[in-house]
Amino acid sequence: MPITVVGSIAYDAVRTPFGERERMLGGAAVHFALAASFFEEVSVVGPVGDDFEEQHLAMLSDRGVLVHDVERIAGGETFFWKGEYGWDLNSRETLDTRLGVFEGFQPKLSERSRESDVLFLANIQPSLQLQVREQLPHARFTALDSMNLWIDVAREDLVRAIEGVDCLILNDAELRQLTAKPNLVSAAREIISWGPPAPSVIVAKQGEYGAALVTKDSFFALPAYPLETVIDPTGAGDTFAGGFVGYIAAHTEDDWGDELLRRAMAHGTALASFNVEEFGTERIERLAGEEISARVRELSEITSFSGAPLARLQG
Amino acid sequence: MPITVVGSIAYDAVRTPFGERERMLGGAAVHFALAASFFEEVSVVGPVGDDFEEQHLAMLSDRGVLVHDVERIAGGETFFWKGEYGWDLNSRETLDTRLGVFEGFQPKLSERSRESDVLFLANIQPSLQLQVREQLPHARFTALDSMNLWIDVAREDLVRAIEGVDCLILNDAELRQLTAKPNLVSAAREIISWGPPAPSVIVAKQGEYGAALVTKDSFFALPAYPLETVIDPTGAGDTFAGGFVGYIAAHTEDDWGDELLRRAMAHGTALASFNVEEFGTERIERLAGEEISARVRELSEITSFSGAPLARLQG
Repeated sequence: MPITVVGSIAYDAVRTPFGERERMLGGAAVHFALAASFFEEVSVVGPVGDDFEEQHLAMLSDRGVLVHDVERIAGGETFFWKGEYGWDLNSRETLDTRLGVFEGFQPKLSERSRESDVLFLANIQPSLQLQVREQLPHARFTALDSMNLWIDVAREDLVRAIEGVDCLILNDAELRQLTAKPNLVSAAREIISWGPPAPSVIVAKQGEYGAALVTKDSFFALPAYPLETVIDPTGAGDTFAGGFVGYIAAHTEDDWGDELLRRAMAHGTALASFNVEEFGTERIERLAGEEISARVRELSEITSFSGAPLARLQG
Repeated sequence: MPITVVGSIAYDAVRTPFGERERMLGGAAVHFALAASFFEEVSVVGPVGDDFEEQHLAMLSDRGVLVHDVERIAGGETFFWKGEYGWDLNSRETLDTRLGVFEGFQPKLSERSRESDVLFLANIQPSLQLQVREQLPHARFTALDSMNLWIDVAREDLVRAIEGVDCLILNDAELRQLTAKPNLVSAAREIISWGPPAPSVIVAKQGEYGAALVTKDSFFALPAYPLETVIDPTGAGDTFAGGFVGYIAAHTEDDWGDELLRRAMAHGTALASFNVEEFGTERIERLAGEEISARVRELSEITSFSGAPLARLQG
């Protein structure tokens, strides 16, 4: 089922202990779309400035991403983020953020984008997420990402936006902050209990530790794919979301069961692991579908064990 | 195969957001022994003071733990630790540490303790770990825990002690600190590459995220058992180690393969999850073997997914 994603299209300047890039393609909608493009047709909605390079639109098109809702704002500058990561890549400092065309952005969806069955609202102002959600009233699967900033400054809109989607994808710290519940499972179930309407699927992104999936009755957790070399974590969360939502879009018709969601988690995890192996979109741009499948099989192997009963347990 | 553990026997004063205990049984050797006692006979080596209560020795004995190498030092005070946990239980502050009889402790092992096939060196001064290790030259499986303090102040002894065991069990941050490698897999493989002699099995404890297992050629990770109520994390790491080492002791004769290690990880994880549900040893003291098996089966269920190839992956 076709997918629409609304979010940032950006240029990033990134320094990690392993190198740097002064200006590379980035943004949540770009990372999401590249990952999801392995599964379904994705339409990207977001603004760029005069400075946005044709070659980047061409690259997205080559991967099957629809870019006719990428709005070029005359006289504007593409969203720009500059950041630096600490030695273990678990912390990062923002050195510069220039909103550019993102300031005053009003999403305009073509008929094609409004007709998608699957919608991903990447991390943007919650009021815009609400506005976009209303334009796809019949979407069959909708998911939303956000960030600590919006919990702080636009909580009411954010809660309304969350209540309007099927699936919430957040960092585990953000789930705790949103609910004021320190326990991850309780925090996730609290959000589910807001409804109806409320999401029935909560995904907690846990960075290098992987991700967990909580529904009303079930729990699933998957470690990150183990890598000896991680170069740049930028975009890992959105790449994960692209793999997760993309897999669901490709495999669900009217509902989504546990087994589907788990396999979607594995595909998101595999995609994210490729993303962090190089800067920005560099690795994903030349990724092949069979590499994803191979890593999903490996993930299954490195997490499996027999839970069969013991002969010798005492007491 | 019988187990010997050397480490602290303590009284703890603990405050968490969910309650407090002014004086409860604790210590690494105690938590380890209680967990391991579900699998094999464990002999505990460690000192206590005049204040140590008979009822606590009796409780250990009732669980099948051998306590004749628990040395009572006349005029001494049992090791005492007082700490307080933050709201999400991921940080803790030490408010008081009184070494008591632990200061100047010289481990004395009876013949029974020296004849064990399996040895766990809980977190004590590395020079004492070395000394004990030498008294069990023929042990078939040896494991060691330590802490950041010893990496800082006794690194050389610690490295020697680590080189003398089969399995190193550390927090992931400690593995990074020890090797100055920010990447967990690289850090673990670095330690394996020290040898021979060096451990061939590295377990990275990851707190609420679970634990990972690294060998020369393989990787395994298991999330923590998901709990909505966590009361007190004190002793979780040693309880994990007791389940892990205990399972290996009960199931290995001369070597240990991946499947055995993975199942051992699952049993350690299950034991640790019970430990944190109540204060100190309270939950484990009245735990039944079948509860462990049930939780191991659940862990298997909540981590499993099919890694079978996809029909519809593009690109």
